[in-house]
Amino acid sequence: MSQTVDMEKIVAFCKRRGFVYQSSEIYGGIRSSYDYGPLGVEMKRNIKEEWWRSMVYMRDDIVGLDSAIIMHPKVWEASGHVAGFNDMLVESRTSGRRYRADHLIEEATGLDVEGLSAEELTRIIQEDERIKDPVDGGRDFAPVRPFNLMFETYTGPVKSPENIAYLRPETAQGIFVNFKNVLQTSRVKVPFGIAQIGKSFRNEITPGNFIFRTREFEQMEMEFFVEPGTDEEWHEYWIEERFNWYLKLGLNPDNLRKREQTDEERAHYATRGVDIEYNFPFAGWSELEGIANRTDYDLRKHQEHSGANLTYTDQATGKSYIPYVVEPAVGPDRVMLAFLVDAYREEEVRGERRVVLKLHPRIAPVKAAIFPLTKKEPVAKVARQLYDDLKGEHRLFYDDSGSIGRRYRRQDEAGTPFCVTVDFDTLEDRQVTIRDRDTMEQERVPIEAVRERLKSLISG
Amino acid sequence: MSQTVDMEKIVAFCKRRGFVYQSSEIYGGIRSSYDYGPLGVEMKRNIKEEWWRSMVYMRDDIVGLDSAIIMHPKVWEASGHVAGFNDMLVESRTSGRRYRADHLIEEATGLDVEGLSAEELTRIIQEDERIKDPVDGGRDFAPVRPFNLMFETYTGPVKSPENIAYLRPETAQGIFVNFKNVLQTSRVKVPFGIAQIGKSFRNEITPGNFIFRTREFEQMEMEFFVEPGTDEEWHEYWIEERFNWYLKLGLNPDNLRKREQTDEERAHYATRGVDIEYNFPFAGWSELEGIANRTDYDLRKHQEHSGANLTYTDQATGKSYIPYVVEPAVGPDRVMLAFLVDAYREEEVRGERRVVLKLHPRIAPVKAAIFPLTKKEPVAKVARQLYDDLKGEHRLFYDDSGSIGRRYRRQDEAGTPFCVTVDFDTLEDRQVTIRDRDTMEQERVPIEAVRERLKSLISG
Repeated sequence: MSQTVDMEKIVAFCKRRGFVYQSSEIYGGIRSSYDYGPLGVEMKRNIKEEWWRSMVYMRDDIVGLDSAIIMHPKVWEASGHVAGFNDMLVESRTSGRRYRADHLIEEATGLDVEGLSAEELTRIIQEDERIKDPVDGGRDFAPVRPFNLMFETYTGPVKSPENIAYLRPETAQGIFVNFKNVLQTSRVKVPFGIAQIGKSFRNEITPGNFIFRTREFEQMEMEFFVEPGTDEEWHEYWIEERFNWYLKLGLNPDNLRKREQTDEERAHYATRGVDIEYNFPFAGWSELEGIANRTDYDLRKHQEHSGANLTYTDQATGKSYIPYVVEPAVGPDRVMLAFLVDAYREEEVRGERRVVLKLHPRIAPVKAAIFPLTKKEPVAKVARQLYDDLKGEHRLFYDDSGSIGRRYRRQDEAGTPFCVTVDFDTLEDRQVTIRDRDTMEQERVPIEAVRERLKSLISG
Repeated sequence: MSQTVDMEKIVAFCKRRGFVYQSSEIYGGIRSSYDYGPLGVEMKRNIKEEWWRSMVYMRDDIVGLDSAIIMHPKVWEASGHVAGFNDMLVESRTSGRRYRADHLIEEATGLDVEGLSAEELTRIIQEDERIKDPVDGGRDFAPVRPFNLMFETYTGPVKSPENIAYLRPETAQGIFVNFKNVLQTSRVKVPFGIAQIGKSFRNEITPGNFIFRTREFEQMEMEFFVEPGTDEEWHEYWIEERFNWYLKLGLNPDNLRKREQTDEERAHYATRGVDIEYNFPFAGWSELEGIANRTDYDLRKHQEHSGANLTYTDQATGKSYIPYVVEPAVGPDRVMLAFLVDAYREEEVRGERRVVLKLHPRIAPVKAAIFPLTKKEPVAKVARQLYDDLKGEHRLFYDDSGSIGRRYRRQDEAGTPFCVTVDFDTLEDRQVTIRDRDTMEQERVPIEAVRERLKSLISG
């Protein structure tokens, strides 16, 4: 199925319908930062809820966690982020601007320089005359320097080195440092997982593509702890599980693929990484989720740095080991963008153009809209009663203004899968019309059966 | 009903049962920072979900929002936080330590100095000889200085003044700067509200009391926009609504009260503020929630600073005005602490001591536990089947180890309101036992009726 939306259109649509606004817009905006409006916040909540349900509710081998954004700075020394979580930056002395060295080189020369050191990048920039400052064409560059992507701040009143704190660049470390706590207080046994949803921050030099890459973003990460030697099998298992999650939620399989990470792009701690990618109309195949075999790297580092004993003893076999970790890590913001562009359609229906978001009912911001055919009693009263009966269970919308056709169009754009209309016949036969967003077909349902019917349609 | 828990006991209990861990514990912890474990994360999720349901789902005059933590710095200039969100600090030259000037004075003299300026506080400290450095008894103090409570960081690679960013100290401003966006894209009409849940950060000098006051915390804030002149009435309305929310969720009314804020403690923008307080066993009456009449202060300031037109025109009456704002603002972390201490009981039952958390079923981390009387088939298979049938709807727990009595005790401590046991009789009569946590009474229910029975018990 072809996608009918480009970046400009989706940004305008998201603004117009209250999905996503530019952050601090009345002050001219802040680069690459977005706020979720009334429909957007519900859609993002649904994505996070579905992930949590599939990871935690549906399984008895995974428990949840919610750790702090600001952790002890030693956590980031142990994890390697203080020393190694860098972009290589180069300053042009002619314009005073800073660029990512890899981007500068790749754009000018086509060379792939992923994984090269600051010294190697400096040498290439100095020797290859094709590489110029894009602003003024200058070739006077300072040596390439690593720039750490963690946001820094200070706790307490004194800005001294011992009070430095970092905003976490990933939620995963909060899980690793609590591994022992969870083990001791939750009756879990390897293999088991710990799942977490929360904000992370990366001081990216080149964020972009709307909500695809932002400095402040949310993560849904699950660390699955397994016995060494079983890690490759579990890795395969989680790649399939996670791929199927997108399919179950209706993402077009033609726009979804798995891709093996190359040796250069894989994180230093991982023996294998597989990305689940989506084919965005404006950016091509891009990562939605990475599933990595992190080995025992993190637990081992934290054991070394903290002195805590992070080995696990299997009560059945007596074996002791530091578990290996398989990690599916997703960004709900970019998943939301994928769902939006995948669901967006412009259709001609009976000579009228409609915009419709064909979102899976579980992801749709509003599950059903309730319409009285007229604002007048007693029709309105019956509709209101139905709305009041159902609103505790789902996000609903009540709309009594404009023609039914116009109300349908508004809900189509919002992605609302079902519209329930109370009309004059309802007063006689106690039945209402449920209209399906995608097929536009209508069925008559007894008013007492609406609750169950909606429930089964939504869980679809 | 008397509370049976002190601070030490609740902290140990929260750790032991996986509700709350000290953050970064393996690195010696980080002061006043906590992580939510497997039971705690579910309980906090439930509190947030109940608030969202009552604010957004149940009402058609409130919509949701999720704005960024890092906003444009001008937002905080306009709101007054850059200039005025300060604690008054005084440095002792003998010990080099910094203290909150108001605490230092109040503890030494009993004087109430709330609202005094830095100059006034400096004069008191210099003149009153009772005021000494608590560490070394010294009386050589530097002048009192304001210390801004906003965490600062920098975006982009250069730490220059124009790149300063603040971690938001309240979620409310994200709502105010999006007022126009929501108005234009959501078909709302005054009176209406915008609700938001999210993290905020305050660089408190004296955080404390477990999860009651932490530097990183969550907020649930709702800004309700009304026509000037109707604000006092709406204020009363929201005080009652919010007070009743706690009662509906089972908080002991004897430990709950409303308290009028004094002129000194009220924020400068508010004409009236009422706190909903809980009587904590270790801290006495303390704020759970504040309901403030913020007037048109914030919208007016943002209009002045941004140049955007934030007036509202009532289509029916033609009146134009900047709306007044009534704000109920809650911290889910401290609400969770109140629910925990309120629900905690140590009881003697049939000669056995039990610890039980009498949490409202909607707040309880796990809604029901499923027990097979034995691990053996076919009892286990039936129990497993029941668990699999129900787990998509609620957070459940499956436990097949130890005696049923021990399993009950474990769930009592976790606050699980219902335990469902599959026994040998089940194989004959297709009925299971549902045991109530509080009354400890048991009822036999046909296995097909468990879903509906649990649903009605939980929504209680």
